[in-house]
Amino acid sequence: MTKVHMSLEEAHALAMSCLLANGCDKANARAAADRMIQAEGDLCHSHGLFRLPWYASGVKSGRANGKAKPRVEQLAPAVIRVDGDGGFAPLGQAMAHQPLVDCARENGIAALAFVNMFHLAALWPEVEKLAMEGLCAFAFTPSYPYVAPAGGTKPIFGTNPMGFAWPRKDAPPLVFDQASASMARGEIMIAARDGHSLPETAGIGPDGQATTDPKVVLEGAQLGFGGYKGASLAMMVELLAGAMIGEFLSTESAQDDAGRGGPPKGGELIMALDPAKFGDPDGFLAHGEKLFEAILAQEGTRLPGARRFENRQKTAATGIDIPQSLHQSILDLM
Amino acid sequence: MTKVHMSLEEAHALAMSCLLANGCDKANARAAADRMIQAEGDLCHSHGLFRLPWYASGVKSGRANGKAKPRVEQLAPAVIRVDGDGGFAPLGQAMAHQPLVDCARENGIAALAFVNMFHLAALWPEVEKLAMEGLCAFAFTPSYPYVAPAGGTKPIFGTNPMGFAWPRKDAPPLVFDQASASMARGEIMIAARDGHSLPETAGIGPDGQATTDPKVVLEGAQLGFGGYKGASLAMMVELLAGAMIGEFLSTESAQDDAGRGGPPKGGELIMALDPAKFGDPDGFLAHGEKLFEAILAQEGTRLPGARRFENRQKTAATGIDIPQSLHQSILDLM
Repeated sequence: MTKVHMSLEEAHALAMSCLLANGCDKANARAAADRMIQAEGDLCHSHGLFRLPWYASGVKSGRANGKAKPRVEQLAPAVIRVDGDGGFAPLGQAMAHQPLVDCARENGIAALAFVNMFHLAALWPEVEKLAMEGLCAFAFTPSYPYVAPAGGTKPIFGTNPMGFAWPRKDAPPLVFDQASASMARGEIMIAARDGHSLPETAGIGPDGQATTDPKVVLEGAQLGFGGYKGASLAMMVELLAGAMIGEFLSTESAQDDAGRGGPPKGGELIMALDPAKFGDPDGFLAHGEKLFEAILAQEGTRLPGARRFENRQKTAATGIDIPQSLHQSILDLM
Repeated sequence: MTKVHMSLEEAHALAMSCLLANGCDKANARAAADRMIQAEGDLCHSHGLFRLPWYASGVKSGRANGKAKPRVEQLAPAVIRVDGDGGFAPLGQAMAHQPLVDCARENGIAALAFVNMFHLAALWPEVEKLAMEGLCAFAFTPSYPYVAPAGGTKPIFGTNPMGFAWPRKDAPPLVFDQASASMARGEIMIAARDGHSLPETAGIGPDGQATTDPKVVLEGAQLGFGGYKGASLAMMVELLAGAMIGEFLSTESAQDDAGRGGPPKGGELIMALDPAKFGDPDGFLAHGEKLFEAILAQEGTRLPGARRFENRQKTAATGIDIPQSLHQSILDLM
């Protein structure tokens, strides 16, 4: 595959230009570009410029608000809400970050209900950013109905990721961001395209029978990771980031999209805890490190998120390569 | 197996007598008996009177404080701590329940750091009780090192359950309580005793190789559910209910027990959210029901926790049966 090489700054400028050309204002374009280029820098291409055509068409079609002016409000002493004004998540997240940090530090724990927005990104950036401030953080968001409930055969839940981050001493935070589904939707689509088979745990066909054929799974339903336990987590995400905050369940988000194939509209719930307020302010960081040392003392282990930070250091110096076909499709959008 | 039939009241009186005879005061005995008999009533025998000999020997040996006087204190506007005074969890939980409810209602979200106690029970009772008050709740507790980290071969994490509950409209709460490990420790021990084999996902031998032999898994390590994702959750529980609140990691709890084989000493983290403070106070309950209706419309599904509530209704009228051998061993303790 032919690649186009660029620095992260060049990649950012490319994303900005494309978003501005398609109807975003500067603030919205910058926040979305920041998020995509952060993913590119971490070599998580599936959340990088690969998403740009989806952002651009979302705005161009008029479905997403490229000039969104998110509003931050306080719902309770430890609960903040951001109304995303129908735009993409990154600007609202950026605006709500400091209020959430302040609220968590003041109260020991705080929550952010993020509504009325389109979420196209991974969850790790927001929890990582909170952990960079010394907080422990959770994030949840639903998507479209892809996953069957335990014992059922038809998709109801999104792949419904949960992000978690913990601050470290003299090291980047520990961060994981994992779908409640056994496999990512994109991996199954790529397996279908390339004619590969899936593990039996990935999904079922429309008849409810286990299958390793990705095309049959796409017609049927994905399964939760570890079976019914992952399905429980997927259900929990629907309740937390859908029902509780007055936003779409995954099924409702799909109805709202009405077959357009655009990004899912919906909500996100973030919880931030200040470990310094939980009784061991001078010890908790070293105590976490003791756990990590025990893990890393075993051959073959790695802390979640560690590879991303290594990649980030590399790409800051070397830049990135993107497929020529993606580069061309971005240019075609301008 | 010969069984002894008794009413729930008789079972409670039996548990009380045994705990009092072994050195508990009335308050501690009552709280522990309440918890065990609640489990018996739900027909979850593994958390019922089956645990009584462990409670009794824990006190008799002097390791657990049968006359514990837990202390509740406020660490931050939305963070409460209970020091369990070295006793069993149920009394401290009972004492902290109302302060946590009040704190969550006032702030929208609140956390409870529970330290210096022995946790022998399931997590569902405390999250269920919070959801009975209209709150959404999480609970986490570590145990002893049984589960290997992702990619590793030696046990570091506990089976590390996570409990979750959501309030329902005109119905008992939705509640799940699931270990981060692929299988419960007890199930593996029973399989070893009975000569049954395990699924390949349950664990590995000391050589790090997959095995279906429960005896080899008991010498090696259990695995997280869904593989590395369950291991991430197990690690998260160590951080939340160990490092963050200044309590033991699972490895530290095992060191503290020093081979006595007693119940694990350690901590628990509970988070309670008041959904009425998250922006849709009049809609969230019905919205949750919409999700549950979609799940239950599929044949073969059931909501987590539903069977326990059905059992509870039955046993309130019919009473319970316990193995004659267990009954005798309880009598022998008095």
